[in-house]
Amino acid sequence: MKDIEEQLKIIKLGIQELIPEDEFIKKLKKGRPLRIKWGADPSAPDIHIGHTVVLNKLRQLQDLGHQVVFIIGDFTARIGDPSGKSDVRKQLSPEVVKENAKTYKKQVFKILDEKKTKVVYNSEWLEKMNLEKVLELSAQYTVARMLERKDFKERFKNETDISVLEFMYPLLQGYDSVHLKADIEVGGTDQKFNLLMGRTLQQRYGQEPQVVLTLPLLEGTDGVQKMSKSLDNYIGITEPPLEIFGKTMSISDELMMKYFKLLTDISIDDIKKMHPNEAKKLLAQELIARFYNKEKAVKAREGFERVHKKKDNPDNIPSFEIPKDSFSGFSAPSVEIMTASGMAESKSEARRIIKQKGFKVDDRVVGEEDVIDVSKPVIIQRGKRHFKNVIKKK
Amino acid sequence: MKDIEEQLKIIKLGIQELIPEDEFIKKLKKGRPLRIKWGADPSAPDIHIGHTVVLNKLRQLQDLGHQVVFIIGDFTARIGDPSGKSDVRKQLSPEVVKENAKTYKKQVFKILDEKKTKVVYNSEWLEKMNLEKVLELSAQYTVARMLERKDFKERFKNETDISVLEFMYPLLQGYDSVHLKADIEVGGTDQKFNLLMGRTLQQRYGQEPQVVLTLPLLEGTDGVQKMSKSLDNYIGITEPPLEIFGKTMSISDELMMKYFKLLTDISIDDIKKMHPNEAKKLLAQELIARFYNKEKAVKAREGFERVHKKKDNPDNIPSFEIPKDSFSGFSAPSVEIMTASGMAESKSEARRIIKQKGFKVDDRVVGEEDVIDVSKPVIIQRGKRHFKNVIKKK
Repeated sequence: MKDIEEQLKIIKLGIQELIPEDEFIKKLKKGRPLRIKWGADPSAPDIHIGHTVVLNKLRQLQDLGHQVVFIIGDFTARIGDPSGKSDVRKQLSPEVVKENAKTYKKQVFKILDEKKTKVVYNSEWLEKMNLEKVLELSAQYTVARMLERKDFKERFKNETDISVLEFMYPLLQGYDSVHLKADIEVGGTDQKFNLLMGRTLQQRYGQEPQVVLTLPLLEGTDGVQKMSKSLDNYIGITEPPLEIFGKTMSISDELMMKYFKLLTDISIDDIKKMHPNEAKKLLAQELIARFYNKEKAVKAREGFERVHKKKDNPDNIPSFEIPKDSFSGFSAPSVEIMTASGMAESKSEARRIIKQKGFKVDDRVVGEEDVIDVSKPVIIQRGKRHFKNVIKKK
Repeated sequence: MKDIEEQLKIIKLGIQELIPEDEFIKKLKKGRPLRIKWGADPSAPDIHIGHTVVLNKLRQLQDLGHQVVFIIGDFTARIGDPSGKSDVRKQLSPEVVKENAKTYKKQVFKILDEKKTKVVYNSEWLEKMNLEKVLELSAQYTVARMLERKDFKERFKNETDISVLEFMYPLLQGYDSVHLKADIEVGGTDQKFNLLMGRTLQQRYGQEPQVVLTLPLLEGTDGVQKMSKSLDNYIGITEPPLEIFGKTMSISDELMMKYFKLLTDISIDDIKKMHPNEAKKLLAQELIARFYNKEKAVKAREGFERVHKKKDNPDNIPSFEIPKDSFSGFSAPSVEIMTASGMAESKSEARRIIKQKGFKVDDRVVGEEDVIDVSKPVIIQRGKRHFKNVIKKK
């Protein structure tokens, strides 16, 4: 293990808060691998680059010799909130939870070191918890302090229902720290309340309290809100390379700087010297290389450039204007697009070409079942040479 | 069983609320004995006449052919509230709970019909409750509605701690109704929130909800606050007859009328024709006759009158003025009172007389271990003929 000062310097890089630092130093001084708790709710198993801010930090801690305990909150995910007021808590069947957990693990180990990660399911201990233990736990925290949590506070003020159940979740999540005797818990700044709960509960149960390490939240591709799947402003780490490339290219120059800072080790000074478009291409390649490999990163860049060269020179390729009332809404099945645009003579021909992987939209191969978003211009391609700009008439 | 109209008339006598009456009539129409839930917390096992308002109503319901289920909340009594903020919830050992429950039962059956009473302990079902069930239960109620309960509301407003645990108690208490499939729950008006919780939860769990029957609260002997042991304004049903008699005589004329109304079937018009003192004696006798028997009631009256005749004519008996600095505080052991007042020559003589039951204070035999309250004048008596007024000097 590296010496404490060096460890501390690395660990503090890019974090938001370390609460409290002196206790953390004391823990490091023990000279043993620390137990780092990281919890995930398997109700939304798709990991996006927003999650990787935390995951990268965890990986860093692993590389420094520490142990990550990855808690999959399968138990709590199984409990729905029938009040229906909480979007966060939809009841999931044990099968779905299991499937999601599997997906989650597969994605997480693109970043974490599997050998230094212990995966546990909180059903292991929560399933056995009886009422007496639950009451003992619920005696450790007051209603007023619970209502200090930002979202509860706002909902209470706005008279939006909060079920008593929702007060139980932070307690149970905090109890996980007690059960695991965690040394550190890592999470986004929005998790600070919950992470501190673990600290409080450990103290109440007579344990040395965990240190809380928070990381900044990554804004979504819109540059406004926190990255999240439900807001559709995310870049998923299992998305096709070209998709990741395209989404990265779409962000603002300002946001690009933040992404570089939070997601890469590349010096910001070097970035500032580059043309913003070149810098974005570098960022996109960095991300794809991390979640796939360098080769795929390069191929994605080439694919993107090929399409955009055409997009940038629309005169070189013919356009197909979708008639105003065609296609319900702003999307259409691939077969229909092919025939309507004249790229295929008939639906059966379209189907044959599509089956042979001879039809692409924005450089991506499209299947027969795929529905094409035509709300913004796309370039469709048959075989190697036939391109068309598809534009929805305003 | 009597016909429904007649039953309803009897049941509604002296109650505060019946929520809702139409559902109650529907239940009566089923023509089967209804399950009446009555719960008690065994942390304070002494029953006073305040409790008998509810108990009398339950007895009435039994006499009409219905079944009382008496729940002893042994489980919840075992859970303490370590926040220490709630006086109501002191942790009790299983042994104490068991002992208290025994005492409680013994007293309750002075009024209830044992054959028509099913005694259950809520540990029977709560002990087996697992976390999943607890969370399901806690999802049935919102924080805001919980905070509508009067005491929670006030404490929240005054920033007095309410632990999350305290939110669990009403839920568990309400769940008892679900478990027992109660038809009716009976309680004091101060229990209305909790009783309605049972109703709500039964609906949530797909049951026909219980009807809630509340009874007015009996004011304590001070005529101001609710009767309760901790306020020392109570008349316990197992207190010695003379004690019950004396306490009853001490209440105000106005309060006496309320007691007659809430505790007896005697017509208020008849009482109004009597001298208040005579009426109080009648009330005291009624109470003693109910908790003991008629003979003891008459004897208590005689004892009370004997002492008070002397108290009313203090010139007939000598006085003993306690020197200003004697006796720490306002009480003294019986032996000391005997010797200091000159009723015994020595402590050993005092002890001998006391052992032979030859020493009384206010007509009650006093033991060697007894400490005598001399904060107000008392009449002490040796044998049959020697009396003294004991007065603490101001």
